[in-house]
Amino acid sequence: MKKISDKVINRLTLYHSILTDYIEKNIEYISSPQIADLLHIDNTQIRKDIALLNYKGKCKVGYKAKELKILIEDKLKFKSVKTAFIVGAGNLGMALAKYDNFEAYGFNISALFDNSPLKIGIKVNEKEVFHLNELPVLAQKFNVKIAILTVPRINAQEVTDFLVKSGIKYIWNFTPCVLNVPDYVQVWNENLIGNFLQFTVNHNVEDN
Amino acid sequence: MKKISDKVINRLTLYHSILTDYIEKNIEYISSPQIADLLHIDNTQIRKDIALLNYKGKCKVGYKAKELKILIEDKLKFKSVKTAFIVGAGNLGMALAKYDNFEAYGFNISALFDNSPLKIGIKVNEKEVFHLNELPVLAQKFNVKIAILTVPRINAQEVTDFLVKSGIKYIWNFTPCVLNVPDYVQVWNENLIGNFLQFTVNHNVEDN
Repeated sequence: MKKISDKVINRLTLYHSILTDYIEKNIEYISSPQIADLLHIDNTQIRKDIALLNYKGKCKVGYKAKELKILIEDKLKFKSVKTAFIVGAGNLGMALAKYDNFEAYGFNISALFDNSPLKIGIKVNEKEVFHLNELPVLAQKFNVKIAILTVPRINAQEVTDFLVKSGIKYIWNFTPCVLNVPDYVQVWNENLIGNFLQFTVNHNVEDN
Repeated sequence: MKKISDKVINRLTLYHSILTDYIEKNIEYISSPQIADLLHIDNTQIRKDIALLNYKGKCKVGYKAKELKILIEDKLKFKSVKTAFIVGAGNLGMALAKYDNFEAYGFNISALFDNSPLKIGIKVNEKEVFHLNELPVLAQKFNVKIAILTVPRINAQEVTDFLVKSGIKYIWNFTPCVLNVPDYVQVWNENLIGNFLQFTVNHNVEDN
């Protein structure tokens, strides 16, 4: 299958969010100018993205919200469930465990892990916090290959080494560290600092 | 000034993170193959990015870590301080208030806001939580134009309207909603779902 660019994926999920909102409000149709207006991006860009889904709107009324939503879900494989562990049950780990609607996007967080005795056994959004030592056995038992890393910077590499030894193959990295992993492990950096700077450097944010 | 692409900004911050680590370990030089190896990206890409900083490494030894770090900081304007409020003192807001080293990147979070009486007055990483009603006055008093939005999905638009009325000009949106704002307000969507799907859709993450 042809690769979808990261920017297109990003926009499709934003359209999806708008469509969810429209459907909740019982609005049947949406037009590309309406989407363009909400996202402050160009109308032609939106039509180009939607053309990738082989979907054509109706003249004057636009796209059927429910149909377009399903097409985006198919394209981005929301039905293909990925199970993940959250590693680090601090505020960020807790926030992600509670994050609205991850499940709707095919993302199933099945458990959290931490090494603080104070946190073991508590439940966040019906997901239990286990001791990190239990991760290798549980990862194997439930065939979990994805870890969301939300530990403090200082522990990031050490915990990563442990995850790799435990059979984790994909790490969604929320720490500000660049992780050293073998070639067969993939890291996806959620680079908050980078995202913030993309915003400020190129969008003329005023100093103060 | 020529615009730096978002991808370049993203990579420069990752190089910066690696350099910080090298400097902490008292390693004086770093080579582009060493960076390439850690990030699993191509060496030529790294040299191209670093050429944008008008910096040339020394043959065989590479770049001086401290010099390269400063050049990245200048390019990405770490010295130009941006002050921001966090709006929503839930787990995510708390996590961002505690986030390692935002200050080092020129990002100063001066206060948090919430409407829960249980949270007003508590301090997170020396930053106080105020009632949302106090935001307009404090934003004007301290000339704060940036808000980091970490409220629940259900309140996102209502709080956004309030922020716009309070003079906020830039919103870093961590909610999964597309916010409706006037043209003079800029929203930067931290689209976690989109980022996750970029990872899974194009990187052949196995189902389970």
